[in-house]
Amino acid sequence: MNGSPLFMPKLSDPQTEQEQTLQATGIVERWQAIRLRSVAIAAPLSAEDCMAQSMPDASPIKWHLAHTTWFFETFILEQFETGFQAFHTDFRVLFNSYYNGVGDKHPRPQRGLLTRPSLDTVLAYRRNVDERILQCQDQLNDARFVSLLELGMQHEQQHQELMLTDIKHLLSCNPIFPALYPVSEMRKPLPVSQNLSWQNYDACLCEIGHQGQGFSFDNEGPRHRQFLEAFQLATRLISNAEYLEFIEDGGYQNPALWLAEGWDWIQQQDLRHPLYWRYDFQQGWQEFGLYGLLPLNPQQALGHISYFEASAFASWAGARLPTEAEWEYAAQQHEIEGQLSQLFDHGWQWTSSSYSPYPGFVAAAGAVGEYNGKFMVNQYVLRGSSAFTPTGHSRITYRNFFPATARWQLTGLRLARSLAQED
Amino acid sequence: MNGSPLFMPKLSDPQTEQEQTLQATGIVERWQAIRLRSVAIAAPLSAEDCMAQSMPDASPIKWHLAHTTWFFETFILEQFETGFQAFHTDFRVLFNSYYNGVGDKHPRPQRGLLTRPSLDTVLAYRRNVDERILQCQDQLNDARFVSLLELGMQHEQQHQELMLTDIKHLLSCNPIFPALYPVSEMRKPLPVSQNLSWQNYDACLCEIGHQGQGFSFDNEGPRHRQFLEAFQLATRLISNAEYLEFIEDGGYQNPALWLAEGWDWIQQQDLRHPLYWRYDFQQGWQEFGLYGLLPLNPQQALGHISYFEASAFASWAGARLPTEAEWEYAAQQHEIEGQLSQLFDHGWQWTSSSYSPYPGFVAAAGAVGEYNGKFMVNQYVLRGSSAFTPTGHSRITYRNFFPATARWQLTGLRLARSLAQED
Amino acid sequence: MNGSPLFMPKLSDPQTEQEQTLQATGIVERWQAIRLRSVAIAAPLSAEDCMAQSMPDASPIKWHLAHTTWFFETFILEQFETGFQAFHTDFRVLFNSYYNGVGDKHPRPQRGLLTRPSLDTVLAYRRNVDERILQCQDQLNDARFVSLLELGMQHEQQHQELMLTDIKHLLSCNPIFPALYPVSEMRKPLPVSQNLSWQNYDACLCEIGHQGQGFSFDNEGPRHRQFLEAFQLATRLISNAEYLEFIEDGGYQNPALWLAEGWDWIQQQDLRHPLYWRYDFQQGWQEFGLYGLLPLNPQQALGHISYFEASAFASWAGARLPTEAEWEYAAQQHEIEGQLSQLFDHGWQWTSSSYSPYPGFVAAAGAVGEYNGKFMVNQYVLRGSSAFTPTGHSRITYRNFFPATARWQLTGLRLARSLAQED
Amino acid sequence: MNGSPLFMPKLSDPQTEQEQTLQATGIVERWQAIRLRSVAIAAPLSAEDCMAQSMPDASPIKWHLAHTTWFFETFILEQFETGFQAFHTDFRVLFNSYYNGVGDKHPRPQRGLLTRPSLDTVLAYRRNVDERILQCQDQLNDARFVSLLELGMQHEQQHQELMLTDIKHLLSCNPIFPALYPVSEMRKPLPVSQNLSWQNYDACLCEIGHQGQGFSFDNEGPRHRQFLEAFQLATRLISNAEYLEFIEDGGYQNPALWLAEGWDWIQQQDLRHPLYWRYDFQQGWQEFGLYGLLPLNPQQALGHISYFEASAFASWAGARLPTEAEWEYAAQQHEIEGQLSQLFDHGWQWTSSSYSPYPGFVAAAGAVGEYNGKFMVNQYVLRGSSAFTPTGHSRITYRNFFPATARWQLTGLRLARSLAQED
Repeated sequence: MNGSPLFMPKLSDPQTEQEQTLQATGIVERWQAIRLRSVAIAAPLSAEDCMAQSMPDASPIKWHLAHTTWFFETFILEQFETGFQAFHTDFRVLFNSYYNGVGDKHPRPQRGLLTRPSLDTVLAYRRNVDERILQCQDQLNDARFVSLLELGMQHEQQHQELMLTDIKHLLSCNPIFPALYPVSEMRKPLPVSQNLSWQNYDACLCEIGHQGQGFSFDNEGPRHRQFLEAFQLATRLISNAEYLEFIEDGGYQNPALWLAEGWDWIQQQDLRHPLYWRYDFQQGWQEFGLYGLLPLNPQQALGHISYFEASAFASWAGARLPTEAEWEYAAQQHEIEGQLSQLFDHGWQWTSSSYSPYPGFVAAAGAVGEYNGKFMVNQYVLRGSSAFTPTGHSRITYRNFFPATARWQLTGLRLARSLAQED
Repeated sequence: MNGSPLFMPKLSDPQTEQEQTLQATGIVERWQAIRLRSVAIAAPLSAEDCMAQSMPDASPIKWHLAHTTWFFETFILEQFETGFQAFHTDFRVLFNSYYNGVGDKHPRPQRGLLTRPSLDTVLAYRRNVDERILQCQDQLNDARFVSLLELGMQHEQQHQELMLTDIKHLLSCNPIFPALYPVSEMRKPLPVSQNLSWQNYDACLCEIGHQGQGFSFDNEGPRHRQFLEAFQLATRLISNAEYLEFIEDGGYQNPALWLAEGWDWIQQQDLRHPLYWRYDFQQGWQEFGLYGLLPLNPQQALGHISYFEASAFASWAGARLPTEAEWEYAAQQHEIEGQLSQLFDHGWQWTSSSYSPYPGFVAAAGAVGEYNGKFMVNQYVLRGSSAFTPTGHSRITYRNFFPATARWQLTGLRLARSLAQED
Repeated sequence: MNGSPLFMPKLSDPQTEQEQTLQATGIVERWQAIRLRSVAIAAPLSAEDCMAQSMPDASPIKWHLAHTTWFFETFILEQFETGFQAFHTDFRVLFNSYYNGVGDKHPRPQRGLLTRPSLDTVLAYRRNVDERILQCQDQLNDARFVSLLELGMQHEQQHQELMLTDIKHLLSCNPIFPALYPVSEMRKPLPVSQNLSWQNYDACLCEIGHQGQGFSFDNEGPRHRQFLEAFQLATRLISNAEYLEFIEDGGYQNPALWLAEGWDWIQQQDLRHPLYWRYDFQQGWQEFGLYGLLPLNPQQALGHISYFEASAFASWAGARLPTEAEWEYAAQQHEIEGQLSQLFDHGWQWTSSSYSPYPGFVAAAGAVGEYNGKFMVNQYVLRGSSAFTPTGHSRITYRNFFPATARWQLTGLRLARSLAQED
Repeated sequence: MNGSPLFMPKLSDPQTEQEQTLQATGIVERWQAIRLRSVAIAAPLSAEDCMAQSMPDASPIKWHLAHTTWFFETFILEQFETGFQAFHTDFRVLFNSYYNGVGDKHPRPQRGLLTRPSLDTVLAYRRNVDERILQCQDQLNDARFVSLLELGMQHEQQHQELMLTDIKHLLSCNPIFPALYPVSEMRKPLPVSQNLSWQNYDACLCEIGHQGQGFSFDNEGPRHRQFLEAFQLATRLISNAEYLEFIEDGGYQNPALWLAEGWDWIQQQDLRHPLYWRYDFQQGWQEFGLYGLLPLNPQQALGHISYFEASAFASWAGARLPTEAEWEYAAQQHEIEGQLSQLFDHGWQWTSSSYSPYPGFVAAAGAVGEYNGKFMVNQYVLRGSSAFTPTGHSRITYRNFFPATARWQLTGLRLARSLAQED
């Protein structure tokens, strides 16, 4: 978990230490660091790069920069600032993502048409809201203020991961495959054991979900009991080399391995490999990333696969995906005994668990309550975190979620198996 | 459970007794009764009625009659008949539904174009296969033969329910709203308590899933443990009258009640009421069914709603959908204490459980293994059974499943609520 | 024009003579013969065959039988029958095709869902309307009555051609390729010259369009002058053998031959040959037709090609499509000098003329005025007639029209070339 | 034709005189002026404005700037430059529009994803190619060089008009309706007569098409004869006020006025007014343009209507659209007698003529031959020119063309009527 993942962008280094320090000192400093990091992610990008939207699921970087600011303006300044006035009334609609409770919103697939306001204006919007937030510091003894500030920070960190996945997708659509960072700055991955080994877990009644101090999203609670039948979990993620074996064994041509909906989908889309892989007759397998188009690294953890591909690979390997309760329980054991590697920072791990409310879950009142609950259908939970996840944003109880076809996120795979029930 | 549900078609009466008798005597007689019942369902329909396909999800009645026969020919005769010869080689492709392991299949959305073979030929196909099955009776001491025969019978009963839902949908597409049965033959519904009452269940470690004697589908096992936090369940289904309240309270206009995907979907489809309801300025609310277009019956259990509508209604009512484990555990208790009504025969009950494999589930080898496992994604489990379910086909462990948008099945709703955790 | 075209169905023989006789005797007898011929076309079809709709552009045979009857009921009986009462009020909506002026209409793509009324009821509807029309014979001295009767007869003949093309398309969607007629009844095609020869026409001011006695549709007039630069026309249609050369020369792989929209369309649809051709590795090229799936006949006139394919073939052959004025002028000359063959009865001939009103064209008042004018956009004119056109329905001024992608009509191709302008 | 149309952007003033001068002096100076004007059009736009693509039919400004340069590089430098080397090999694919003969092309709907190369790089590309073209001046005595240079200039002028229509469309998609130019710089329209008057033309044999000196596109020839029946033409274009009458008279609600395909299309798209009109309950009718959202100017020539709307308006007005031959013949007469106004510079005028080749038309050999001919299907010819057409680019024989649904071009309407034929 402390290792530097292969794809972790250079720019996150300085923040890593800085943020760790800040966590010790105070929320305002941490807030400032997070706000600055979003701007830092955009720094190597042109205004043109920040404008484009490569598909309806992705958003322009400029939109991310504005929307995270809109969140602070709408949910904090509007309530806590004396004499509140919107920076620009139009921004209330333009940069609302999906909060029906807040009012109208600009249609998602058209975010790439907002050439105005300019990136410069959006950066000015950020600075303006930041200054006004700082002027509200006297509210820091109001728990509601602190809680919304924390929510805004976590929200912005989520968008930082989206900024990296969205810009990666956008650049991949350009036939000249531009590199965002010079390849010379790419870090070496830590060595990982070649052989896949398994950790066993006895049947037990476990407790999962967030409880106690520290931030969590509403969907992580309440903490509750779940019974697990005996299972085993792979101690590391599936690597590119292992997935290549699956491909070369005809994995994409064998319907018996696939969920029926997945099989139809890969036929329609003509999918034959992970999202950013390309086969070149002269160069062999390559993968596109923020450092450009490079030879495929066989040792690296597999990324950018759909739930359907994860499931088919697991079938091929005589295994299955873990449930999220199995994953979280194993992660709890790991904190004590340290048996697993690559739990965090390498790739989000698809679980077989559909995203649904924990027993006793109640969404918060008001627009903030639209954060999570209303997405609990036709999505699958991913656990862990990826090389694109900001430092400090990972948690054992964290529930990420995407539809079964999503591939532009840094999504990978850890295998599980059921163990025979004892009598 | 013994009450005669409102919509149970007249024609199922004679079979009811006959089948019950047959269960006592023997599998061959039960098999004959089931085979005859499919033909009996089609009896009041013309060859034209049996030809048409109203949407890709539905199939023509003729296709159901042929496909259930294909199942016996392919999975039994081909293995157990000496000197097997297909009734017609083309039928191997035409009436394969989705078994990739068996070979090619005719595209589902084009089943309504198969004007040939004629209904008469399909009925001859049924008689031919039935005779040949009877000639294999000497195999009855082979457990594999018996098990496949039983699977074919259960499979045919599933299609009998689909025949009724599909013909209902087809007739509803005709602007003259034809009635399949004369309204004079419609049965009166049993009285049901007006007030919705709740049954409480303590937190406990339960066991769910099929075990032991008697048929079950592979997806119903293995039996395994699940921990349930304390909850309560409504003792009966939601009625038309209650759903009408939701509509009149603006339920379809309030995004706060809906899952985000459901909200977008009802906007796109412009949905404002259950599938077969219609509002007429002179007649008020009406509902189409196999007895024609009739005034809406307020006391009857609500049917033909999607998962999204079930979920929105539950939110509006301050409740939620049960999980399938909660439902099955409550049904186990009911068998002892009898607290619930309308568990079976009135309407399938949406649960919040995504359709996924039980711990330790392994699909059968070969084409029969394609029966269930490969559909375990983006579908939600329904429990109980409906007025269209054949007598004797319901089970406490039965897992029906449909996508969240399905409305042409007889799908209703039983509410649940979490109870506060004790400390 | 007197030759018996290859595909002319057997059943039209008796009518041929009968109709010719009737033309001499009187309109009522001719009307009766036309009404009977529609029923005769449907005679070898089952009720199931008559129900299905293979695509939105096609209609069920039952619908054709009902709609042609609706035409007489709506446009004649409603005006001329004393004490008019509709046979069935629902039929007013169900069997209206596109006449907005008449009221609501049933959506075209759902015609295949009308299992009721049954074919028997539709045939009874025909008999009922026919009897009532006969009882109006005293109106035969009213020119409006006669003119509407004639329009209804021409309208029914158009639908007779559609019945044959629609049933051919439907049967072609069935993987068992049923033959409507026994191949033994198929006629031999008349011999046609192997070499393609050309007929020259000097530049001239010609007159085209209908004038004088005899029926014509409104779109065939007014007769008017057009100036033609010198051109030449192929004396016969393109044969299957010639089109096969185009295919084997890579015609479908060479974008330089295609209109841009056509090129994109054949890529999307993956088209590589005419609609009913199939290549079988053992049998070679075959073509499906009303006599079943048969070896491709190289001498026969090519059919079932789109405008895009006609245009690409012409480019490949160093020629072009004729304009409709060129075609009509050449047909006028042919009546005098007889230079051309296959003008009628073999295949409709795509012209390069977009379907548009002649100078001075005014649509008739009322719903009958919706017959033609409102379709004059994005369609191309076809001249001549096909093997499916009823005897007596062809005319030198006849303007058939379809979109550039239509292939289910019996559409073929006659080449033209511009000649250098003299000075 | 010399009047300053309302919407003519300020920036074109200086060029007007300059270009006129240049025409007298020489092709190189004219070429330079045209190249500079494209850059001048982009000058008030940000790099972000130049990046976005609002729909597949439109292109980003940056793409226009690059593609027009690619045209000179590909069709001139590659043939005439000694030691030719592409500025950037990737640009050969990225900025090819549709020339299959030249090689691969980047998919049109994804032009808005090319954030790289940057606008700065594209401007450098322009300067580089311009310098290299200037160094080829010794080829000016080669007729092929001159002819390709002229073609490139005309091509660039066409793209200048597209730049203005595309940026207008893009800005209109932004809910804040940004103005490209300050409204203070907008010119006053010249007064036009309020009453619509008509000019009569006798039946005659006319000649249309380009001939002789001066540039024309290949589709404008060969010059040939056409016979026109007697007709009349409105002496000016239809104004906004007149179209508003049509709207207020229920024009969009009356199917009898519309072509059938147009009627279905306006229902599906829910169209009720021209593209950039908006009705605001407080402000009344407004129109968006390059000067922002302004009150609708009733006297101004109507623009941004589809062929379907033009046709419906004409029906409503008891008239029709002119054919392109009628338009061109009337324009010839106007040059002598001056009866018409608004022939050029106000709005392209839909004709009822489908875009098709003139008799004797042959496309040029090679990739340049893909310029026009392959688009001759399902498009309608527009004549005249618009306020967005560059000065000096209009011609009496000019054939513009768009599909019947196109509305983002500055397309208007001049009425015609047939006159009774004399006997």
